[in-house]
Parts: sequence; structure tokens; C-alpha cells
Amino acid sequence: MDLAPALLSGDRRALARAISAVEDQRPGHEAVLAAVASRRCGVPILGITGSPGAGKSTLVSAIVDELRKRERTVAVLAVDPSSPVSGGAVLGDRVRMLDHTDDVGVYVRSVASRGRVGGLAWTTASIVDLLDAAGFDCVIVETVGAGQSEVDIAGIADLTVVVTAPGAGDDVQTLKAGILEVADVLVVNKGDLPGADLARRDLEAMLSLSDGPEVPLLTTTATSGEGVAGLVDFIPSQAGGRAAIIRRTVAAVRATAEHLVREALADDAELTTLAERVVDGETSIDKAASRWVSRAIGEAGPTG
Amino acid sequence: MDLAPALLSGDRRALARAISAVEDQRPGHEAVLAAVASRRCGVPILGITGSPGAGKSTLVSAIVDELRKRERTVAVLAVDPSSPVSGGAVLGDRVRMLDHTDDVGVYVRSVASRGRVGGLAWTTASIVDLLDAAGFDCVIVETVGAGQSEVDIAGIADLTVVVTAPGAGDDVQTLKAGILEVADVLVVNKGDLPGADLARRDLEAMLSLSDGPEVPLLTTTATSGEGVAGLVDFIPSQAGGRAAIIRRTVAAVRATAEHLVREALADDAELTTLAERVVDGETSIDKAASRWVSRAIGEAGPTG
Repeated sequence: MDLAPALLSGDRRALARAISAVEDQRPGHEAVLAAVASRRCGVPILGITGSPGAGKSTLVSAIVDELRKRERTVAVLAVDPSSPVSGGAVLGDRVRMLDHTDDVGVYVRSVASRGRVGGLAWTTASIVDLLDAAGFDCVIVETVGAGQSEVDIAGIADLTVVVTAPGAGDDVQTLKAGILEVADVLVVNKGDLPGADLARRDLEAMLSLSDGPEVPLLTTTATSGEGVAGLVDFIPSQAGGRAAIIRRTVAAVRATAEHLVREALADDAELTTLAERVVDGETSIDKAASRWVSRAIGEAGPTG
Repeated sequence: MDLAPALLSGDRRALARAISAVEDQRPGHEAVLAAVASRRCGVPILGITGSPGAGKSTLVSAIVDELRKRERTVAVLAVDPSSPVSGGAVLGDRVRMLDHTDDVGVYVRSVASRGRVGGLAWTTASIVDLLDAAGFDCVIVETVGAGQSEVDIAGIADLTVVVTAPGAGDDVQTLKAGILEVADVLVVNKGDLPGADLARRDLEAMLSLSDGPEVPLLTTTATSGEGVAGLVDFIPSQAGGRAAIIRRTVAAVRATAEHLVREALADDAELTTLAERVVDGETSIDKAASRWVSRAIGEAGPTG
């Protein structure tokens, strides 16, 4: 089967195989990406991240419901930057999406990111390219809020939603400051629980400490759909065209470059050896730093 | 005058000229650093940073008083990563240190960091080397809490103190999260002001949101000296030897390398050009990222 024409004509199996080819770096994945590139239109990308247990998957399901009511098609990409163990948990979350399995206007896919931290950003961006070319009206990228990856996703997304919920272990205190900073919209989910008002006040207090732009704060109850329409109103209704594609590509190249550098500079053993040479007068701090960066970057590079 | 032997024998004018040579990258500064290297003993380094207007300079003066009561000599290095305009302000702050001008056990020096963001870390580390070799019992490095530089200093310091104070414009809200994270000790200065208890409670609330190690929270009144002895108790009383010198050199090399990379990757114009080439199918995200890093790092490098 020639994947590209099939994908462009709406064949979901061809889309799934193309995504796997990109995810696993199989031969030919670059040809598929090139073949569908001209059919991208800058699909609006919604990024969803936040505390574990905040009900992100249920909220995504409710957002999909609302988008379908508005007759918009949607693809959901769940990025799991974790171990094989929680790969099962993500699969479990996806069961909640089974409501949508008979709807051709909805496509759901999980991608594991394990073993390729440096490649996560560009893999995700390339898969978004495939979903964009496949003609969806909206793409949702869902990540667990636990590290650097969701910050990268925030760069790729047109609208980043950070989700929290009342209750021990997944309230506002587990939100890292870095995650709050990438939020375009903050959501307190599980709005029907007694602690929802308190979680909202905690978030308002945290936001008052920030000197960034004002961030809308919404309350949703994903299980009943309450408040979800107001959240969906924030998603851009039109595709952004070439400018949007360039914007998300800039974010992907930057995130990938920063990963390359971070991985390359993580080798503390070599750094200590270099520092000892500085202390012994064999080189200077600036020369050691320059040499370390050059050598680390020279050895780094894409794995695919 | 041969600077190194004079510096080692306690000549303060030689020390001042050696510092200027390092600061301005004058010919021969590397020879001076090499000549005094074997006389370093891993002097304890106290890093002081925090909100503008928190009374950092007055607090440093009070710390110097307390160290002198304990018969320890001390050098103060004030790093000013700002414009020529506030260079004047720092000079003004230094006037408060005039109490110590007749005391040969105290040495005070301001260094400007303007125009050499990438070199700030290694310049500071090399000047600390000079002060260490000159035989001081303690070195205080004071920075304004306004960016990346004080985080670098925190890496070099053995004990980092973050100072805030009650009052509009310089209370806890102006402390960036990144600064709180580098604190080994938090100080609410101006403890005699009515808002001190409130500032303390605000800080305790912020600390409760952090998942890092417990940070001691002290209250001082630098103008009267109250609480300052308790703060000085946290300064290591012994020089750390070669291990301490290596530790601070690792931090300096790392900070300098990260500056090199950050400066090199800051060129957004080129990034957009590269992203456009990706969008046009001329290259891939991973290759563009790799090329961008390699080219940027190749062009970067120490200025001195």
C-alpha cells in the first residue's frame, strides 16, 4: 500500500501505519512526510497537560464530545514520556475514549516516548504533520505533566491548557512552577468535588505571584461536561496556514536542539575531569567550557 | 611590580590590580592566576542574592561586622550584572561599607558584568581564586537577584542566602521561583518593620509549595545586627581544600558552558529560516536542530 495517498484520502489504517513509521524511524517515513507536506493547513493544536489524576483523559473525552457537537473532526495524540509500566496505565485511560470508536470524525493514538527524550519533540511535531495533512479540524496533544516534554509540547500547541483538580496528591501543590508558566488557560477539573473552590483560590493566589500575562481560570466537570463548552471556545476555529506551520516547526526545532544540548552537557564525569584540569592549571575555565560544549555537541546528533 | 608575590604577601593594591587584570582580560592575567593557584585553600564562599531593596548591602556589612568579631578576615565581591546607570547605585551601596575601610582584614570590591554575560561566571570564579589565594578566611559574593547570573553564583557559593524584606516592591512577590530554589538559607531582613511577620508567613507558604529540601528561614535586622550572628553560624568555618576548589570550578565551567550555549541558541532569525526550510521539505526537524546547534556552537566560544 502506498501510505501517503491512502492517508490523504482518509484511510485510518494508512494513517496509523504512517504514524508508526515516524514513531519507530522506519525506512520511508521521511518520504511519507514529504509526500503529505503540501496538504497541511496549519491545524489548530490544543495542548493538554497537568497533574497526574486531574482527570485529563476524561476532560479530553469531553472536549472531543463538544467538538463533535460543533461538527469538527478531531485527532487525539497522547504522549507518554514514561516507562513501559505506565504505558499500561495510558492504555487504560484510553479505554474511556471507546465512546468515540465508531465515529470516523475522531482518531485516538498513543505514542510512547521512552528511549528517545531528545527525539520526542520532533517525533510529535512530525506526527502532528501527518494528522494535519489527514484533514482533521483540530489536534489535541495530551501529555502527563511531569518534566520537560510538556513544556516542549506547549511550544508546538496553539493553545496550552493546564489541568488540575482538588484532592490529595493531585492538587495545586503538585503543579510545578514551570508548567503554570506555559498555560494559556488553567482548568480546575472535578468541579463537583467539595475542594474545587479551595483549589481555585489556591491557583488564584499562585497566579497573583506571577508577573506574566493574565491567564483565564476555568472550572470544569468533565464527567458531566459542565464548563467544557467554555473551554472549547478558546480553541482557534480556523486553520492557521503556513504561518502556523512555521511557528510550530520553530518550536519543534528549538525543543529538539535544546534536548540535544541538555543530553550532551549532562555528562558530569567528564565535567569533573575538565574542572580538575582547570584546578591543576592545565587549562582555563573559559577554554574548558568552550571545549566541553564543542566536544559534547560534536558527539551529539539525531539518532534517526 | 610583580603582582603575584605582592598579592600573596597581603598587598591590597596588588590584589586590586590583579582583579582588574582578570576583569578586563588584560595580558598576563592568566600568568597571575597560575602563579597564585597553589596558594588557594578552598575558602568558604557565601553567596548573597535577593530582591532589590531588601537591604542586601547593609546585611553584608552586618555579616562583615560579625565575622570580624569572630576574628575572621573577609573579602566582599559585589557583582553588578546591570547597566552603567545602576553601576552608580552599586557604588552608592558600597558607601555603607566605608565603616570597614580602615580594617585590613576586610576587602571590598565591585565588578561590573555588563557586556560579558557569557563570561560572568568564569570571571567571578577566577576573581574568587585570587581572593582565596590572598588568604581571606571567607569570601562573600553579592549579586542583585535579577536573572541567570545569581543562579550561577549559587553554584559557586558554598552557602547561598536569599534575602527579602517586607514592603511594597521588594517583598516575597518579587522573588522569582528560580531564586528561591537556589537558597540554602532564606532571610527576611528589616525584621523591625511591621510587615516582617507577614513576609515570613508568605515565604513559609511558598516554601510549603516546594518539594525540595527544607530551607532554614531566618529574620534579621541588619541595621541593628539582630539575627545576624545566627546567619553567620551557617557559614562553614573551615576551608574546604582541593575538593571545594574542584566543586566551585565544576560550577563555573558548567555555568560558562550554559551561557555559551544560551547565547549561541538565542538567534531566532536563523531559527525561523531553518524552520522554513523544514516546512518546505528541504530538511527535517532533527537535522535542522542538529545543524543549528553545531553551527551555533562552532561560532560561539570565549571572547577572551
